[in-house]
Amino acid sequence: MTTQQLIDQIKKKKSFLCVGLDVDLNKIPQHLLQTEDPIFEFNKAIIDATHHLCVAYKPNIAFFEAYGLKGWQALEKTINYLNKNHPEIFTIADAKRGDIGNTSTMYAKAFFEDLAFDSVTIAPYMGKDSVEPFLAFKEKHTILLALTSNLGAFDFQTKLVDGKELYKQVLETSKTYANSENLMYVVGATKAEYLSEIRQIIPNSFLLVPGVGAQGGNLQDVCKYGMTKDVGLLINSSRGIIYASNQEDFAQAAAQKAEVLQKEMQAILES
Amino acid sequence: MTTQQLIDQIKKKKSFLCVGLDVDLNKIPQHLLQTEDPIFEFNKAIIDATHHLCVAYKPNIAFFEAYGLKGWQALEKTINYLNKNHPEIFTIADAKRGDIGNTSTMYAKAFFEDLAFDSVTIAPYMGKDSVEPFLAFKEKHTILLALTSNLGAFDFQTKLVDGKELYKQVLETSKTYANSENLMYVVGATKAEYLSEIRQIIPNSFLLVPGVGAQGGNLQDVCKYGMTKDVGLLINSSRGIIYASNQEDFAQAAAQKAEVLQKEMQAILES
Repeated sequence: MTTQQLIDQIKKKKSFLCVGLDVDLNKIPQHLLQTEDPIFEFNKAIIDATHHLCVAYKPNIAFFEAYGLKGWQALEKTINYLNKNHPEIFTIADAKRGDIGNTSTMYAKAFFEDLAFDSVTIAPYMGKDSVEPFLAFKEKHTILLALTSNLGAFDFQTKLVDGKELYKQVLETSKTYANSENLMYVVGATKAEYLSEIRQIIPNSFLLVPGVGAQGGNLQDVCKYGMTKDVGLLINSSRGIIYASNQEDFAQAAAQKAEVLQKEMQAILES
Repeated sequence: MTTQQLIDQIKKKKSFLCVGLDVDLNKIPQHLLQTEDPIFEFNKAIIDATHHLCVAYKPNIAFFEAYGLKGWQALEKTINYLNKNHPEIFTIADAKRGDIGNTSTMYAKAFFEDLAFDSVTIAPYMGKDSVEPFLAFKEKHTILLALTSNLGAFDFQTKLVDGKELYKQVLETSKTYANSENLMYVVGATKAEYLSEIRQIIPNSFLLVPGVGAQGGNLQDVCKYGMTKDVGLLINSSRGIIYASNQEDFAQAAAQKAEVLQKEMQAILES
């Protein structure tokens, strides 16, 4: 999917919501555990109930890998279901990969070819040759970790490197990578005040923003400091939407939570 | 496996060799492609031929994920084969994971519980709460990226943070994490001269050292600067061993290459 197609979807749906699929068998409605593939059944129900309210889904790969072969199978079924039924929706493999060149190429094949995601999240620690193999894929997007939403972000990301925070060095250095137009960035909503400085470095890039909701980030602040003329934001909510209820009404409850966010986004877009 | 058990194996086998399993279907002997599970058949033959010469195996998870469900199945079979037939061998999931706390917990479950590896490689960019969920597992080991063997290592890892290289900040900060005694570190052999300074920060920790062989690192230099009284090194070789031949003799050819390294290690240990 091209960036323009994503922007068109945002304008059409009046939403820049991404729904995170972090499926924990201890948290989903217990009646689903009787089905053959509870993870996929949960995802399918969530997707069926929310697809008109969001522009992206973000399966969190850890939550599939933790269930081994069955988890990987559920991941395949989830991405295939999305690509078949909702090809207009942007898909994000939240995998936080990154390795030496030939290994990154294999990860890129895993997520862009075998699973056919539109994008994948990548950790920057290993530098240029760990990121460029992902950028080499046309019409695919590499979402580089810049400033994450967790407390550990202050361990290294905000430390000064040559007088500038490491996450800003990551932003600036990554602009020099081959095919850097395929880059998006992770910037946590819990650090909204950093967004205006980030926008000075990457004025137009899309940002994937976790941390609204369960982690305490504020949508209004993120938009105030981070929005571009083409929106340029994908706001992720995972637990706040998908675990709105753990009863039989879970999918409708998720849709209600998603709609609250979508309406708030619509108001911002129309203001 | 405890660190002491690993040290005992090193002394018994007179080897601190780790064999990397980076199985690329384009590089393995073509006759294996006729079998039902070429990736596992390749690994099994390599393990059968080399297990007496090494103390660790390191499946590179990207090379399994790239083949989707079949790849994951081959990974399961490989680790199960190792744990059943060679429980004395240290196993490393080279996965380079790392995410916010609850997600890292799921990755830890995937590699320590579902797949029952002894250790997993982790990227430090997201800091403390992305690493500690792995450290919480008893008798498991978290191998944190410090200074990697690729060119991109110079993008960020060697940059000065408060007057000290980022990779040294990673080493020092990680020592304050809960259960830090379960930490090992990745330090590339291509940067052997850095090892004496690294040993001032972490005098006793085990180092996983990639880059000997295909990437140009030198075993003598690594040992000179990095070895401790308990050895403290696992030297990885992947392509240099497993792709020694792409004919029917591939496993024997791999064993010959492994034996050259093991003999070199034995000479160092006995000198």
